[in-house]
Amino acid sequence: MVGTGLLGTSLGLALRATGVDVTLSDPSPTAAALARDLGAGRLTTGTDDDPDLVVVAAPPDVAGDVVVHELAAYPRAVITDVASVKAAPLATVRAAGGDLRRYVGGHPMAGRERSGAVAARGDLFTGRPWVLAPTAECDPAAVRRVRELAESVGAVVSLMDAREHDEAVAVVSHLPQVAASLVAARLREVPEAAVALAGQGVRDVTRIAASDPVLWTQILAGNATAVLGVLRLAQVDLARLVDSLRALADGAPGARDVVGARGVVATLVAQGNEGHARIPGKHGAAPTTYAQVLVLVPDRPGELARLLADVGHAGVNLEDLRLEHSQGQPVGLAELSVLPASAATLVAALAARGWSVQT
Amino acid sequence: MVGTGLLGTSLGLALRATGVDVTLSDPSPTAAALARDLGAGRLTTGTDDDPDLVVVAAPPDVAGDVVVHELAAYPRAVITDVASVKAAPLATVRAAGGDLRRYVGGHPMAGRERSGAVAARGDLFTGRPWVLAPTAECDPAAVRRVRELAESVGAVVSLMDAREHDEAVAVVSHLPQVAASLVAARLREVPEAAVALAGQGVRDVTRIAASDPVLWTQILAGNATAVLGVLRLAQVDLARLVDSLRALADGAPGARDVVGARGVVATLVAQGNEGHARIPGKHGAAPTTYAQVLVLVPDRPGELARLLADVGHAGVNLEDLRLEHSQGQPVGLAELSVLPASAATLVAALAARGWSVQT
Repeated sequence: MVGTGLLGTSLGLALRATGVDVTLSDPSPTAAALARDLGAGRLTTGTDDDPDLVVVAAPPDVAGDVVVHELAAYPRAVITDVASVKAAPLATVRAAGGDLRRYVGGHPMAGRERSGAVAARGDLFTGRPWVLAPTAECDPAAVRRVRELAESVGAVVSLMDAREHDEAVAVVSHLPQVAASLVAARLREVPEAAVALAGQGVRDVTRIAASDPVLWTQILAGNATAVLGVLRLAQVDLARLVDSLRALADGAPGARDVVGARGVVATLVAQGNEGHARIPGKHGAAPTTYAQVLVLVPDRPGELARLLADVGHAGVNLEDLRLEHSQGQPVGLAELSVLPASAATLVAALAARGWSVQT
Repeated sequence: MVGTGLLGTSLGLALRATGVDVTLSDPSPTAAALARDLGAGRLTTGTDDDPDLVVVAAPPDVAGDVVVHELAAYPRAVITDVASVKAAPLATVRAAGGDLRRYVGGHPMAGRERSGAVAARGDLFTGRPWVLAPTAECDPAAVRRVRELAESVGAVVSLMDAREHDEAVAVVSHLPQVAASLVAARLREVPEAAVALAGQGVRDVTRIAASDPVLWTQILAGNATAVLGVLRLAQVDLARLVDSLRALADGAPGARDVVGARGVVATLVAQGNEGHARIPGKHGAAPTTYAQVLVLVPDRPGELARLLADVGHAGVNLEDLRLEHSQGQPVGLAELSVLPASAATLVAALAARGWSVQT
């Protein structure tokens, strides 16, 4: 394990739990020792190692160089990496003449808002997507080896080529990060009374704005071409929206006759509806296939547990749960998502137990 | 109650629960009758009404005109509205020479992704902000009357002038909606394999992209000037980011020497951190004041209930709860937010009961 940050340490913990012998190295001896102390493996001696598989868990901007180094250092080993961009490290390896038969790029999509070994968890990969991006030059046995690694820690493997991967994450991961940061950045400038109005919408949109600037600079810079393509499309939509709002703002108060301007606004929101509907729900079902049941939950210890125990007694499985809070309020609202066929049963059962419930 | 959509019907339900006599009207007789059948009040006869207070719960683009009409129709009554923009209706009332002593604009911040009377809930306003935007002309007794209304249904009242309100919601509500729609719109164009990689980040960022295009067109058009100001600032940040990524993309693979480009990216993410940190947590505490405890939850009926029962047995109150899912996985991850002083107790108690838990 070359690199003992969040991903390297988590993967070490997960592999140790399956009995694999893991050796750890990191440019920072302190970081490597911390990962060892957390139970992620033993420190590499640097002389007697003969690994079957080397996982490069280095930051995205140096992953390619480290892969090149490891390919040369361990001529027998399969090398993979976990960088969240895939074309740039591959280009580096190719340019350096690295042995592409033994390099299988990978990306476990298991980041967190926190980073470092102290945030590591052995279960980080359970049920998460792990993309492998093998090239035409890859030895099929090397691909199998890396797939086994990912599956042994509970990840769900899919295969894409590097460019396809980078374009996918530009849309489903990097654009959302940029949008969250852009929105959150504006919150710096508003009066306290304005942020006090923050509801669940802005909280959800900006949650990932708490992410690490250094890591995200590496990711966005490492995927500059694909991110640029997506951001330019977003710029076009945004410019059309701004032009329309300017036309509306320039009209008299209450003017309702700016031709087309409202159509542009409505189209953008409708296109958002359409894109949102494509996000798969839990178990791959479309999100709209669940029914929502809303329940008022008093803010006392044990009330949420009592509610969910009552859900369990009703024999209904929760597909999802969201809690809504508002500043200074004594109660919260729980949104329970269940299969539509279960909703009526659940509403009746909860109402019978005295809950304030609505569908 | 003039208008029986989500807000009008919910407010009718809430007021009826406190014993207030509510009469209902709506341009659609069917909508009014539905609200009556749901228990939100009785239908107006249109002749013998003499209301103390008229609530205009009409769409934002016609709220001002309806207020003008109601001021004339009921010369004794205080008139308020619930439109999510405040300057435009006020300008309409002022331009029409309406009696400003009796008009107190309001905005209960209690929208949902769904609309219409069928989505109405009597508890919709409990603990939610309700902004009042009185003018200098307002009769103080009229402001008191509307404040009492809001507080009687459990809302938390704050006072702002109309422009201050519109600038606040442009940042904390309208910009997040635009950002969510812009991001979700891009999901229309990507292959199925890409949306299959959608994780919690893009799900959170785009949740409100499911909102109603017609309503949001009215809101954004009704607050065009303030939204425009915020969007232009976001455009400037976005353009700087695009320029930096273009400089990085034009470099050789692995180029690391584009002066300043990475700084621009890192600054944007860091400014997002800073803005995000201003969002108040539950009870008004900063979000960073909670400790997070992560627990693996097997996907079987009753497991989440068992977990929360164990939290209750530990004597710890949950401040927040988030569930994370991933496609096709048999388990979920629960993120429990608690006061930092309670975290160690909770971890020990849950571990003792066999849960897989990490802080």
